[in-house]
Amino acid sequence: MAIYESESRKLRTRAEELMRKLTLDEKIGMVHGAQLFQTKGVERLGIPPLKMSDGPMGVRQEFHAASWIPEGTSRDYVTYLPCNSALASTWNRELAYETGSVLGEETRGRGKDVILGPGVNIKRSPLCGRNFEYFSEDPYLTKELAAPFIRGVQNWDVAACVKHFAANNQETERLWVDVEVDEKALREIYLPAFHDAVEKGGSYTIMAAYNRLNGQHCYYNEHLLKEILRDEWEYEGVVISDWGGVHDTELAAGAQQDIEMSVTDDFDDYYMARPLKEKIKNGEISETVLDEKVVRILMLMFRLHMMDREKRKRGSYNTPEHREKALEVARESIVLLKNENARLPLDPDKVKKLLVIGENADCMHAAGGGSAEIKALYETTPLMGICALLGGNAEVRFAKGYIRDEQPSDTEVNWQETSLENGGLNHEHDSEGNDRADMKLPYEQDILIKELLNANPKTVIVLTGGSPVEMGEWIDSADTVVWNWYAGLEGGRALAEVLFGAVNPSGKLPETFYRRHTDCSAHVLGEFPGGDKVSYKEGVFVGYRYNDSFHVEPQFCFGHGLSYTTFQYSEAAADASEEETTIYCTVENTGKTAGKETVQVYFAPVGRKNDEPVQELKGFEKISLMPGEKKRVEIHAEPCRRKMEIRIGASSRDIRTVICTCTVF
Amino acid sequence: MAIYESESRKLRTRAEELMRKLTLDEKIGMVHGAQLFQTKGVERLGIPPLKMSDGPMGVRQEFHAASWIPEGTSRDYVTYLPCNSALASTWNRELAYETGSVLGEETRGRGKDVILGPGVNIKRSPLCGRNFEYFSEDPYLTKELAAPFIRGVQNWDVAACVKHFAANNQETERLWVDVEVDEKALREIYLPAFHDAVEKGGSYTIMAAYNRLNGQHCYYNEHLLKEILRDEWEYEGVVISDWGGVHDTELAAGAQQDIEMSVTDDFDDYYMARPLKEKIKNGEISETVLDEKVVRILMLMFRLHMMDREKRKRGSYNTPEHREKALEVARESIVLLKNENARLPLDPDKVKKLLVIGENADCMHAAGGGSAEIKALYETTPLMGICALLGGNAEVRFAKGYIRDEQPSDTEVNWQETSLENGGLNHEHDSEGNDRADMKLPYEQDILIKELLNANPKTVIVLTGGSPVEMGEWIDSADTVVWNWYAGLEGGRALAEVLFGAVNPSGKLPETFYRRHTDCSAHVLGEFPGGDKVSYKEGVFVGYRYNDSFHVEPQFCFGHGLSYTTFQYSEAAADASEEETTIYCTVENTGKTAGKETVQVYFAPVGRKNDEPVQELKGFEKISLMPGEKKRVEIHAEPCRRKMEIRIGASSRDIRTVICTCTVF
Repeated sequence: MAIYESESRKLRTRAEELMRKLTLDEKIGMVHGAQLFQTKGVERLGIPPLKMSDGPMGVRQEFHAASWIPEGTSRDYVTYLPCNSALASTWNRELAYETGSVLGEETRGRGKDVILGPGVNIKRSPLCGRNFEYFSEDPYLTKELAAPFIRGVQNWDVAACVKHFAANNQETERLWVDVEVDEKALREIYLPAFHDAVEKGGSYTIMAAYNRLNGQHCYYNEHLLKEILRDEWEYEGVVISDWGGVHDTELAAGAQQDIEMSVTDDFDDYYMARPLKEKIKNGEISETVLDEKVVRILMLMFRLHMMDREKRKRGSYNTPEHREKALEVARESIVLLKNENARLPLDPDKVKKLLVIGENADCMHAAGGGSAEIKALYETTPLMGICALLGGNAEVRFAKGYIRDEQPSDTEVNWQETSLENGGLNHEHDSEGNDRADMKLPYEQDILIKELLNANPKTVIVLTGGSPVEMGEWIDSADTVVWNWYAGLEGGRALAEVLFGAVNPSGKLPETFYRRHTDCSAHVLGEFPGGDKVSYKEGVFVGYRYNDSFHVEPQFCFGHGLSYTTFQYSEAAADASEEETTIYCTVENTGKTAGKETVQVYFAPVGRKNDEPVQELKGFEKISLMPGEKKRVEIHAEPCRRKMEIRIGASSRDIRTVICTCTVF
Repeated sequence: MAIYESESRKLRTRAEELMRKLTLDEKIGMVHGAQLFQTKGVERLGIPPLKMSDGPMGVRQEFHAASWIPEGTSRDYVTYLPCNSALASTWNRELAYETGSVLGEETRGRGKDVILGPGVNIKRSPLCGRNFEYFSEDPYLTKELAAPFIRGVQNWDVAACVKHFAANNQETERLWVDVEVDEKALREIYLPAFHDAVEKGGSYTIMAAYNRLNGQHCYYNEHLLKEILRDEWEYEGVVISDWGGVHDTELAAGAQQDIEMSVTDDFDDYYMARPLKEKIKNGEISETVLDEKVVRILMLMFRLHMMDREKRKRGSYNTPEHREKALEVARESIVLLKNENARLPLDPDKVKKLLVIGENADCMHAAGGGSAEIKALYETTPLMGICALLGGNAEVRFAKGYIRDEQPSDTEVNWQETSLENGGLNHEHDSEGNDRADMKLPYEQDILIKELLNANPKTVIVLTGGSPVEMGEWIDSADTVVWNWYAGLEGGRALAEVLFGAVNPSGKLPETFYRRHTDCSAHVLGEFPGGDKVSYKEGVFVGYRYNDSFHVEPQFCFGHGLSYTTFQYSEAAADASEEETTIYCTVENTGKTAGKETVQVYFAPVGRKNDEPVQELKGFEKISLMPGEKKRVEIHAEPCRRKMEIRIGASSRDIRTVICTCTVF
């Protein structure tokens, strides 16, 4: 047995021993894509290629090695998971872990080593086309879910690849745009989720973003990769470029980035392929920088038991348990935005005729969105979910109402006893590579919704999407608005269960739903999408941090989400120590339905400075209460290092109880 | 409340009262299709239309009312169930009930009143294109499974429609062929399953077959419908024509048939539409014959609570429970035909590289076959099932090997450590409307299989299909042959579980697998497919009844199916009474794997007459045994009215113990 094979040797020592056995060619093969989603292995030494796959909502379909043509067999159908925005809406750390675990098991089951997710970029503007892949506008909520998600993934001997590091908050000009952001905003808003992802989540790999950050592209950004990631955070994992994100051999080689991946099939011409080899051979680049990358890659391979098949978990995919888990997440992800006159839930025994209108009710979304596309084993649409729940005793009629890129046809709206509209967005709008121009509903849906509400004011409005839309034209005349994210292969069932009361909704918005995008700080104070440069002049005033500090009224605020029951908060208390602040609060279910509530804790500094937000989320707990049941909730938050108002509530603007003072050290 | 609405009134009285309120037009509307799959209702009296749907493997997709163009929404994706041949292979009455119950719940969930199944026709020849929809060549096995299946369906306030009554054993010339069958064969072979279906299963409806029977078309056949069904069996249910099976107004009206359905959109011109009305009006046909049909239809509607929505079950579809049930059936339906050298199961920990060859490994079958086509929510292929089971530690390579209607390309067979071929048939061969010409494997698969076995004699052969195929060209050089029916949406997973030992196979052939079709009695003694007439000259000598009496060696006999464990039979005994014969037998699992065994009981009359088969299946029980476990099996069979050899065994030709005498009354 070679010394590098001994399990007990320190990882780095083993990796270094093995690296020394490699030729220059072999090492070069390991630091760049030899196929679209994998590197070269070294067969003579039992080093396999590193196999990667997109995306956080499931393992992407197989492509041919050197082209974007799908393999086309049936073996790459997979479980389609709710998008990260949906997961964030659950405010449920356990579900985040379990979702990660499903993804990890499927990643391993599909024979991959690295899954390219989760995406933890902050939703700086509601227009970013990739927002559906991200969690939240809030760094605390993002990191609290991303870290367990990553642990869940990596439980299966595969690596997560937290992305896109960092400040990749728009799709417009994403390859070249220079993001100007101050250190305070970087540290407080854009980096915390990455920090937790590597420190608490232990993410084995991280993806360098496409964009520039304060002048340097992220793939070689010294402040980001060297000073923060390697030195400050002491990260020993592998840094992988975004696909096509490297633009220079010397910069890439000299930087803390380890593997160059790209989208073209000229693998030998990648910056870190033949060009790197030549520069090493003629002395322009020292071979030691290559060696260190290879050591980190080998350490990753040891961590994943890639050279030790017997020890490695096998994984699987498309299991009933995975579908069940996707269903659980979908159930908790739906946000009841508005419910006047207790219009919802509908009574399945009383609904005899139901008119369902809107293309999204019958639309499958899995296959869209860019690299997050999923070849779903199946996808339950809202129409399917509703029909399956109502069964044969109700007559359900469906009309598209609006059709993408077509003029809406006249919709009969007089037939129904009950009517439901399901509009919103789709992956022509929530999509990698493009940002939206505004938050308006496409396909003249506002006209349709107004007509429907005019014909039947009780019409239930359901919106499906990955980012908020303007509702101002009709929101006041709608009793109910239900928000449904891209919610995985059981999303339609979950939605039906919420609409008909089989499930009490408990989702809370992980981002502000603005009235219009021009209310958002990125557009008011900062720039979006900018030009060659985009200046984050709003600093830390992102999302509710801006709205609450600058008195902007959103359509629905951060943390908002209604229930079919009511919760009463009482007996708040706090214990402050140097290590943490513990907040206590009693919550009682005062309604008639079992339900779940996310108790949110915001810290509002007393005598805040101008560059401080009025309040920031610092803790939350989700609890489940039977009717009449009471629970004492205990929430652990960071220590209060100064006088702080601790606000406890059901949303950022529905504060139920406040503790006005707190221990000062 | 009108008298017909009182629940307590006898069904017939209530139906007659209501019938008397109907106009001639309204009654006419109820006895023929007003859409492709439904009749007219009478709105003023709250009588809904009767809604029907194909097929036994699931509820068929929605079509437009008057055309065969699919509706095209997502709401008609359903659970795809194993075909009846697969179900029969389980020899499991409980699974038959549960499969029926899944189908019933989905039928109701989809808003239908009648599901057009199960098909209980006897597999007279292996070439019948619709055999995959039928259970068995044996009337006892068929009826033992069909009756609980029907009870399962009707548990959901929907009607089964047992079909096709009767002697519809081929597709060739099915609309016009005159089946000549003697009374003994009719009574002993072709009718018992129908009898049990209406008597023990309580099937609310029955479908008249397309064909003629001894001169008269089944839709008006007096012997069949009047003498046997109505008079002898006292059937009060509804007789529905096969689609387009009625050819004359007077014959249909005068017969015991109740509803005429067809395939064309000229609904008012159906024989039982305007033409019937005119003949009633001008006195050629008495209105009383129409009245009686309407009464039976109304009785059906009362039975299904169609006029009483509050009492009616709602149903649902696409539930996780349904998929789980389909998986259970699939697991027990797979038949291990041959397993020399204990080649199977494969060890998933030891298989590092697997070559899977054959289009069927990657083929979805749900959408084919004729009216049994299913718009499956999903379908797990064998390739998918194998990859998901093996997970990431094995490398699976797939090659089509053969492609339907294309020349096979060269297949590399030297790469693999393990190789598996999955060929067989598909719904271009197992299909409504056509019979096969022979049992040969299509697409030159024999050549491929021989090449594969030549390259790797350990190649595992898996055949998928709905009817047997010739294997003579290669069977002696194959160690293993696994038979896999069209096995529903989890069929691929079940197959993988069997191949890799997670499930011990327990399927037993419900039909003879002949060496070639010319060995079958329908072809040797009788005619198949005949011309205008087809004579069933083989009489009762169908399937194993012929083979065993005439010393024909099949490839695999009726009841055959291996296990990964071994079972020892002992201590046989029998108790004969006038009511029944009770057979006892001890079975012990003498191997190392838990397994299921179907203990089969055949009666062999001592001193049999020339027109009697050597032996006939009269009882079976399926038991589950842990390694080393022993169970006393009790099997109830019909009384022995004469001296009988009672044979107890693991197949029709693997008799383990015989009780030579039996009480004679």
